[in-house]
Amino acid sequence: MSVTDEYLANNETYAASFEGPLPLPPSRHVAVVACMDARLNVYAALGIREGEAHVIRNAGGAVTENEIRSLAISQRLLGTREIVLVHHTDCGMLTFSDDAFRRQIEEETGIRPPWAAEAFGDVEQDVRQSVRRIKASPFVPHTDAVRGFVFDVATGRLNEVR
Amino acid sequence: MSVTDEYLANNETYAASFEGPLPLPPSRHVAVVACMDARLNVYAALGIREGEAHVIRNAGGAVTENEIRSLAISQRLLGTREIVLVHHTDCGMLTFSDDAFRRQIEEETGIRPPWAAEAFGDVEQDVRQSVRRIKASPFVPHTDAVRGFVFDVATGRLNEVR
Repeated sequence: MSVTDEYLANNETYAASFEGPLPLPPSRHVAVVACMDARLNVYAALGIREGEAHVIRNAGGAVTENEIRSLAISQRLLGTREIVLVHHTDCGMLTFSDDAFRRQIEEETGIRPPWAAEAFGDVEQDVRQSVRRIKASPFVPHTDAVRGFVFDVATGRLNEVR
Repeated sequence: MSVTDEYLANNETYAASFEGPLPLPPSRHVAVVACMDARLNVYAALGIREGEAHVIRNAGGAVTENEIRSLAISQRLLGTREIVLVHHTDCGMLTFSDDAFRRQIEEETGIRPPWAAEAFGDVEQDVRQSVRRIKASPFVPHTDAVRGFVFDVATGRLNEVR
């Protein structure tokens, strides 16, 4: 049995006590942009309940054009106003360089990726980079309430980056 | 008090009973790619526990170059092997067209977005589109176990797309 099949069996249990549907627009008007890291359970760590906040995630919690796309849709079409960025300690993105990763892929596949890996050397600095990318975008209209945090995978605590 | 501050207060409670740290690589070797929709609590809906699976999310659960970047890092550097795609019923991406959204932004900001909005007209068809984009990528090495689902926001149930 694959892990996917196990998760489907778990979903049967979830659906048995499910109460829905909730409205489409996030009720607390928040969008979270977080790293994909397996240890970061965004709903639990922030106490978000179903229906409250958009959750956008990728390797590193990077803000690329695709996150700008998601945030533009979130704010312009679905009414969110606050943005919460979450990176974390012990991140995989600290363990390699863009150049080495792209070279390894090119050596194995014969094709150079058209994207940067978005690796970084300092997690707090990368949170600031992500905040700045959002504030610099002409497509995200509401950037007064953008705050960035580092989730500590040892303690479960969010520490604000200023 | 902002919603962000409320979430920070929730985090104090979460951290008080937190047990960590867990290892960096996902223990169940799974990556989930899901829509950012607020009603889709991925950990709860699939019964995923902290540390088990990468979770990648964006508007629509689209597979763009940025998701290929995240999946390449997930599989090549952190050992995941299965991919679970999750779209859902009543998706915001069904309610507008790429052209209209881009035109609205251009009219308001004077700048045409360089990205497609990735809106779609049929959720099952878009799941198949996303599966095909992953399988077509030269940068995602393990595509034998890619399965796509539609989460029903009324029942909480995952329905497989074949």
